[in-house]
Amino acid sequence: MCDVCVIESVKRKMLSRRDLFRKAALGASAAALSTTTFSTPVLAGGPGRAEDMTHELHEDFPTFFGEQQFFRDQKFNYEEHKFNLLELRMNEHTGTHVDAPLHFSENGQSVAEIPISNLVVPLCVIDIREKAAADADAQVTPDDIKAWISRHGEIPDKACVAMNSGWDKHVGGEMFRNVDADGKMHFPGFHVEAAQMLLETPTIGIATDSLSLDYGLSPDFATHYAWLPENRWGLECIANLDKVPASGAVLIVGAPKHRGGTGGPARVMAMV
Amino acid sequence: MCDVCVIESVKRKMLSRRDLFRKAALGASAAALSTTTFSTPVLAGGPGRAEDMTHELHEDFPTFFGEQQFFRDQKFNYEEHKFNLLELRMNEHTGTHVDAPLHFSENGQSVAEIPISNLVVPLCVIDIREKAAADADAQVTPDDIKAWISRHGEIPDKACVAMNSGWDKHVGGEMFRNVDADGKMHFPGFHVEAAQMLLETPTIGIATDSLSLDYGLSPDFATHYAWLPENRWGLECIANLDKVPASGAVLIVGAPKHRGGTGGPARVMAMV
Repeated sequence: MCDVCVIESVKRKMLSRRDLFRKAALGASAAALSTTTFSTPVLAGGPGRAEDMTHELHEDFPTFFGEQQFFRDQKFNYEEHKFNLLELRMNEHTGTHVDAPLHFSENGQSVAEIPISNLVVPLCVIDIREKAAADADAQVTPDDIKAWISRHGEIPDKACVAMNSGWDKHVGGEMFRNVDADGKMHFPGFHVEAAQMLLETPTIGIATDSLSLDYGLSPDFATHYAWLPENRWGLECIANLDKVPASGAVLIVGAPKHRGGTGGPARVMAMV
Repeated sequence: MCDVCVIESVKRKMLSRRDLFRKAALGASAAALSTTTFSTPVLAGGPGRAEDMTHELHEDFPTFFGEQQFFRDQKFNYEEHKFNLLELRMNEHTGTHVDAPLHFSENGQSVAEIPISNLVVPLCVIDIREKAAADADAQVTPDDIKAWISRHGEIPDKACVAMNSGWDKHVGGEMFRNVDADGKMHFPGFHVEAAQMLLETPTIGIATDSLSLDYGLSPDFATHYAWLPENRWGLECIANLDKVPASGAVLIVGAPKHRGGTGGPARVMAMV
C-alpha cells in the first residue's frame, strides 16, 4: 500500500468511528496542508491525549542549592478585594524548568530567544530506572543511547532525549536530593560523554527527572558546560516519563519568555 | 496491516521525510481519530507548524495598573561565576498570561488545578479588527459569536474563543493602554453578554489580545465576574492571532503550575 493509500485507509476507518471529531479534524488537516512552511517537526501521530510532565511548584519544592527558591505574596484576596492576585518571586531554576543555553554560556540563547520550532519536538525516553534504583549515582551513558537507537532508530531531528530514572517519584521526600553525610547529593543525570555523543546528533534538548542535567555527585557541571553553550537546551525536574512511550510522543515545552532569561519554570506536556 | 502498524508506519515516515509532511497532516488526523481515550480535544490535523502567541516579557511590558510588574535580579553572572542565573519577581497577571478561575472567585480552580485537558483545545478566532480600528471601545458581542458560528459551525468542545482586535500590534506603545485625559483606558474586550452566551456553549476559555478580558472602559470587571467563577479560564495579552485561521488551529496554553496561583505568565502556542 502506498503512503497515500495507507493514510486514506486509516482515515476511512477512523472517520466512521468518531463522528464527533470528524469536522474539526478534517478542517484542520486541510489548513495544515495549505501551509507551505513547516517550522516545527510535525506533531507525529495526531496526539489523542496530553500528558502533563510538570510538577506542581510550591514553597517547599526541593532545590539544587537546598534553600527555598519560590515565594508567594498575596497582594489581593477575595474576601477583602473581591479578587485574588499573587506576586511571585523565584529563582529561574526552580521546579520543572528550562535551562536556556545562556545559563551556562556567555552569549548563548536566552530563554526568550529559543525558537518556537525548538520547543515542539519529538521525545525520546531513555529508561534507566533499573540501574538508578540500584545506584543513585547512575548516569545515562553512550551505551544507553546506542541501545535506544538500536531499538527505535535514529534520533529524530530536533528531538529531546529524556532520562527516565524514576526520580520524579521521589520529589516529595529527602531522596530527591539524597544528601550524604558529607553533604554530597546522589541522584542520576547525563554523563558528559552521553551529552557529547548527542551533540553529534540533531538532538536539540536533553531532559532529566532529577534536579540537574549532571548527576548529583558531579563536581564540575561537566554536562551543563558540554551541552548548553552549543545552543541546546535542558529540562530539569520533569515528571511522568513513565506515562509516555520511549519513542513517538511529541514534547511541548511551555518555556517562559522573559527577556534575557537563563531559563525558568515551564509547563511541559507530551502529546501521546 | 493493523491500525497500529499503519499509524506507526505513517509516523516513522513523517519524522524522517520532510517532504512527506503534507501527507503526514492527513495521517495525523487519522491517527488522532483512532485513539480510544480523548482526555483532551484531539490535536486535529497533525499540525505542521507552531505559532508563538506569546509576547516577550520585560520590565517595561504594559500593565493593567500602569505600574511595573516584572522585575529581574541577576544573582549569578558568567564573568564572575561562570554561569548566569536570575531571580524574578512578578505580579501573576503580567505579559501574556492566564487568568485562572480563582482570580475572580472565592473557590475556583487555581492555575495548578486547571486540568491539562482544558489547556490543549480548539481555537476559534473572532476577528473584530475593523470595528476596533474605528472604535477602541469595541467589544466582542453575541452577534460576533453568531456570525462566527454561522460561518464555521458550532463551537467545538472545550474550545478557546479568542478576540483578534489587532491590539497586540500596539504592545510597544501608548495605544496598548490608551489612557484618556480622565485616566480611563480604551481598548477592546469581551462584552459581558458575549461571555454569558459562551457559558451556554462548551467553550472552556476566552482570550484577548488586549490587557483584559473586559474592555478598557469597563467599570466593574463584568466579564471577569461572569466567566471565571464558572471554572472557565481567560488569557490576556496574547499575540499573533492574525497568523492562525479562524477555525481549525489548536491552542496550547503553557500555563504555570504553582500551587494556589490565580494565573501567571504562560507560553501560548497554536498548532496550525
